[in-house]
Amino acid sequence: MSDLDLSADTITLLTQLVDIESVSKNEQRIADEVEAALRPLAHLEVSRHGNTVVARTALGRSERVVVAGHLDTVPLNDNLPAKLDGEVLRGLGTCDMKGGVAVMLKIAATVPEPNRDLTFLFYESEEIEADFNGLHLLSQSNPELLGADFAILMEPSDAVIEGGCQGTLQVNVTTRGERAHSARSWKGVNAIHRAGEILDRLNAYEARMPVIDGLEYHEGLNAVNITGGVAGNVLPDVCTVQVNYRFAPDRSEAEAAVYVTDFFTGFETVVIDSAPGALPGLDRPAAKEFVAAVGGEVNPKFGWTDVARFSALGIPAVNFGPGDPNLAHTREEHVLLPRIAECEAALRAYLTRPR
Amino acid sequence: MSDLDLSADTITLLTQLVDIESVSKNEQRIADEVEAALRPLAHLEVSRHGNTVVARTALGRSERVVVAGHLDTVPLNDNLPAKLDGEVLRGLGTCDMKGGVAVMLKIAATVPEPNRDLTFLFYESEEIEADFNGLHLLSQSNPELLGADFAILMEPSDAVIEGGCQGTLQVNVTTRGERAHSARSWKGVNAIHRAGEILDRLNAYEARMPVIDGLEYHEGLNAVNITGGVAGNVLPDVCTVQVNYRFAPDRSEAEAAVYVTDFFTGFETVVIDSAPGALPGLDRPAAKEFVAAVGGEVNPKFGWTDVARFSALGIPAVNFGPGDPNLAHTREEHVLLPRIAECEAALRAYLTRPR
Repeated sequence: MSDLDLSADTITLLTQLVDIESVSKNEQRIADEVEAALRPLAHLEVSRHGNTVVARTALGRSERVVVAGHLDTVPLNDNLPAKLDGEVLRGLGTCDMKGGVAVMLKIAATVPEPNRDLTFLFYESEEIEADFNGLHLLSQSNPELLGADFAILMEPSDAVIEGGCQGTLQVNVTTRGERAHSARSWKGVNAIHRAGEILDRLNAYEARMPVIDGLEYHEGLNAVNITGGVAGNVLPDVCTVQVNYRFAPDRSEAEAAVYVTDFFTGFETVVIDSAPGALPGLDRPAAKEFVAAVGGEVNPKFGWTDVARFSALGIPAVNFGPGDPNLAHTREEHVLLPRIAECEAALRAYLTRPR
Repeated sequence: MSDLDLSADTITLLTQLVDIESVSKNEQRIADEVEAALRPLAHLEVSRHGNTVVARTALGRSERVVVAGHLDTVPLNDNLPAKLDGEVLRGLGTCDMKGGVAVMLKIAATVPEPNRDLTFLFYESEEIEADFNGLHLLSQSNPELLGADFAILMEPSDAVIEGGCQGTLQVNVTTRGERAHSARSWKGVNAIHRAGEILDRLNAYEARMPVIDGLEYHEGLNAVNITGGVAGNVLPDVCTVQVNYRFAPDRSEAEAAVYVTDFFTGFETVVIDSAPGALPGLDRPAAKEFVAAVGGEVNPKFGWTDVARFSALGIPAVNFGPGDPNLAHTREEHVLLPRIAECEAALRAYLTRPR
């Protein structure tokens, strides 16, 4: 028997989920509970992969939709157990993202004959290094389980659809000089002074804001680290500025690298990390009808999310969850109960309207 | 009996000194040898203070001159024992500054009736933190032993008189911003970008080169360290540039601090360290006659040296030693034998010419 009661209302279910502490790498119990709650449902094929639980319908529908949510949270911050406060539920994970997980479980239990086949992914370790990410591990061990026409990640988005996501690239931009005693500085070349030109260019940068599939993105080019210096009496011979480029999904990682290298022409540049963006892909029927079912606006996603993993597999994906993204990872995280109801109703409408 | 033979020629004496390893904090043996060599000389009052040896004449002359040299060296670098190579003696300490110490010992032994009273200071731990410096310790324990009308430090100066020295000031110049996720950088303020203006000002800096007592100094204003950054996906909210100002001795530490604070108007500045410069003071008779005896040019000293300690006591002081200052602290340090002879001859002439 599971401690999770799928026949209870969604808020009760969410409260039960929050009260099972599941900081990254400690997801065994919550995965056990989710698995035990889903196993009795005859319309779902349930499988377990580490602490990731997969539940699929196999109704022979013409389209398949993935609905995904991670089970882990960031570390405790004196914010458990859950506390109900009028129309607000407070506590670790209420926003990021057990609100979404509760909606997923409720839909899984109460929509036995959806108009599209469904794959529910309850996955582990989203909040830590990518090597542990349950979606990443599943894409390595069982890539067929990720196959779909469309994917909905129930990450916090304030119950608004967020399409695509921007890519990110980290580059080290380095200046060189010549060491000298700082008492005879005219005998050397100060590498930190040379970095002034790098910062001047960054200050003159104008962000590109392309519109893609009707969504306006907003790029960014920012120094996120700077280091230089040998000793208090030595002219430094090297200075490195780490620059983070956030690029709209109409650019590939390679194009982003070329852009940054050109931007810093005359300086040494080394790309140290990058991840691709994801195009919204909202022209596919499964995506279009989801937008229609939810109604209202669609926003671009500026930060990088697991949406990009699906995009890399050729699957359009969006974020759509009840939490407020600005509350994620804060001690005060909470979720507004009406947002839970809105998300659940939208998903239910999308999956039950006749096709 | 000492291993040092004051009756030998100066080069032999220097070779003996070099072969007594005396890296800072390991000066006991060399101090013992110097003390033992000087004790038999009837015209000198010898006293010992830690590993610093003081030897003074008391002839009732109207002027007193300090001749000072440190006994320690920087760490070994596979450069012992001393090696004679034609007109060059190679090895740790040959340049910085046992060449000067050998001249001091030879003069102490062979000029029993100098025209001015002499105070020879053979001192410990010049190459490490100021708290261990033998001159500093002596100024605390026996300040009367430093009293003089003029001081000659036999630091490497290529047998040219170097007058005065520049002061040094370290200041942290800080910019503040507002953190934000680097994917939404327009919601924050990048403190590293703001530091561009600090580097722009440094790049536009024009060094002051005042002429003082006939010597042309050369100031410098240099970033010696820069730090900023929180994480690869966060707009940094603070960036600090450590700036080193080397200032000519016509400015006090307080004036130097005001200059730098004004230079960086609009930014937070905190002075974290400073040391005063030293005016050449070459108008005193004892100094003037030394310049006349050596002949030739007098250069300014750009770096900070123990000359400033005497200046702080109101005693004009110069550097004058046989080593090439560019070789100090290098593995290849050496001294040209003719420079040893020149320095010894100049000192001898200065101290023996009738007054």
